[in-house]
Amino acid sequence: MLESCDLEIRVRYAETDAMGYLHHAGYFVYFEMGRMELLRGVGLSYAEMERQGLFYVVTKLECRYRAPAMFDDLLALTTRKQRLTRVRVDHSYELKRGGRLLADARSTVALVGRDGRPTLLPEDLYQALGGT
Amino acid sequence: MLESCDLEIRVRYAETDAMGYLHHAGYFVYFEMGRMELLRGVGLSYAEMERQGLFYVVTKLECRYRAPAMFDDLLALTTRKQRLTRVRVDHSYELKRGGRLLADARSTVALVGRDGRPTLLPEDLYQALGGT
Amino acid sequence: MLESCDLEIRVRYAETDAMGYLHHAGYFVYFEMGRMELLRGVGLSYAEMERQGLFYVVTKLECRYRAPAMFDDLLALTTRKQRLTRVRVDHSYELKRGGRLLADARSTVALVGRDGRPTLLPEDLYQALGGT
Amino acid sequence: MLESCDLEIRVRYAETDAMGYLHHAGYFVYFEMGRMELLRGVGLSYAEMERQGLFYVVTKLECRYRAPAMFDDLLALTTRKQRLTRVRVDHSYELKRGGRLLADARSTVALVGRDGRPTLLPEDLYQALGGT
Repeated sequence: MLESCDLEIRVRYAETDAMGYLHHAGYFVYFEMGRMELLRGVGLSYAEMERQGLFYVVTKLECRYRAPAMFDDLLALTTRKQRLTRVRVDHSYELKRGGRLLADARSTVALVGRDGRPTLLPEDLYQALGGT
Repeated sequence: MLESCDLEIRVRYAETDAMGYLHHAGYFVYFEMGRMELLRGVGLSYAEMERQGLFYVVTKLECRYRAPAMFDDLLALTTRKQRLTRVRVDHSYELKRGGRLLADARSTVALVGRDGRPTLLPEDLYQALGGT
Repeated sequence: MLESCDLEIRVRYAETDAMGYLHHAGYFVYFEMGRMELLRGVGLSYAEMERQGLFYVVTKLECRYRAPAMFDDLLALTTRKQRLTRVRVDHSYELKRGGRLLADARSTVALVGRDGRPTLLPEDLYQALGGT
Repeated sequence: MLESCDLEIRVRYAETDAMGYLHHAGYFVYFEMGRMELLRGVGLSYAEMERQGLFYVVTKLECRYRAPAMFDDLLALTTRKQRLTRVRVDHSYELKRGGRLLADARSTVALVGRDGRPTLLPEDLYQALGGT
């Protein structure tokens, strides 16, 4: 059961803003990439989940920004599964450059069907994600 | 028959880059907004078109950048329909600040169905868009 | 003293994701627009603030997503100043479509100088923002 | 003298649109990444160039879209330097998935100084980029 995953991300020029920093909304794009990699790490594909009619919908986000990231910085994102139920997953994130913490965050995603309504994680997916 | 439309757009902070300019990819987001407004101007809704299974897919883009746009600039976008056939629409664009031309561009969009394959514009839509 | 401001925002096609929703990171772009409009409402320009070497840096964000926004939705964003000190400003946000709440959020921005280090709001700016 | 470089890019969820495709503006973000990698390949850093007051400004873009890219696709971008003078660089791009060409494009970037005015490539940079 994989509980966390690490992902290297290089800050793109298009992601910076006039202050020269990675724009604060861009962090959430990275965190989403972390969620996808966490699935990949247990042999799941979010693209495949969607084709089967299961969607992650973010219902809650919190982020603390500690220090700015700049263009071309090579960042290390650690994504952790914090809590899993049959209707939601909580994740936490730490984004670092070298040993320095730039941001830490938490999110909740709900599972919904093609109609956008909450749905239960199928048993096989629940177990693949580490549910017991 | 509406052949062109004007749209005011204020440059967002998130759209700037470390150079302090509107990032060059952001212009195409504006041009797309122009295409949508051009439809709205003849009483059509692109959202509605998609619900009916008709999609614009960009097949070709060209843009000349003449001068930079900056954060908070209030820009004037003129979008023109240049050519309409039953399978594609060509548009041109001029983006200005005050009287100054910042960029001019051209695009081709093809009409495709839900399966991503080329489709013919239905007669009513073709006429609404000014086809004869 | 203006304590809140309202802003209409139409969801752009480029802001949607494969689920057909406004991507969850896009909300923060809107909230930032709200902060800028709140300044404009008291006769201040964030662009001008930056030219004078004063920058807003987001240090904390929280958002609850209640219901999705879709392409072409016309949304109403209410931005409120919640707390002002000489080194930071707290804002809250409500994003609605019609009467329906889609998301509510809070943020903290710190004031920094050109060197990225915390700085005190100048007295005139502090008063213009409603400080007493 | 490196004349081209290859870069693998995985399509992010946030880069897709309601059609389920990589949004057409997103391709230019990738092409810019290609330009940066081309510099890195000859031991140059665009971040360092900017610190020294030299900026790439895109003046012209053309792109043909041949087939859509989807979420999670692993794409191969080939960026080629087509022409180098002391005031501009022309690049071409091919974006593929497997052996299939999804898009091909060309761009011109001008070299400007911190003031946004055209500037000449310094001799050492000109040679590093392969100028003779």
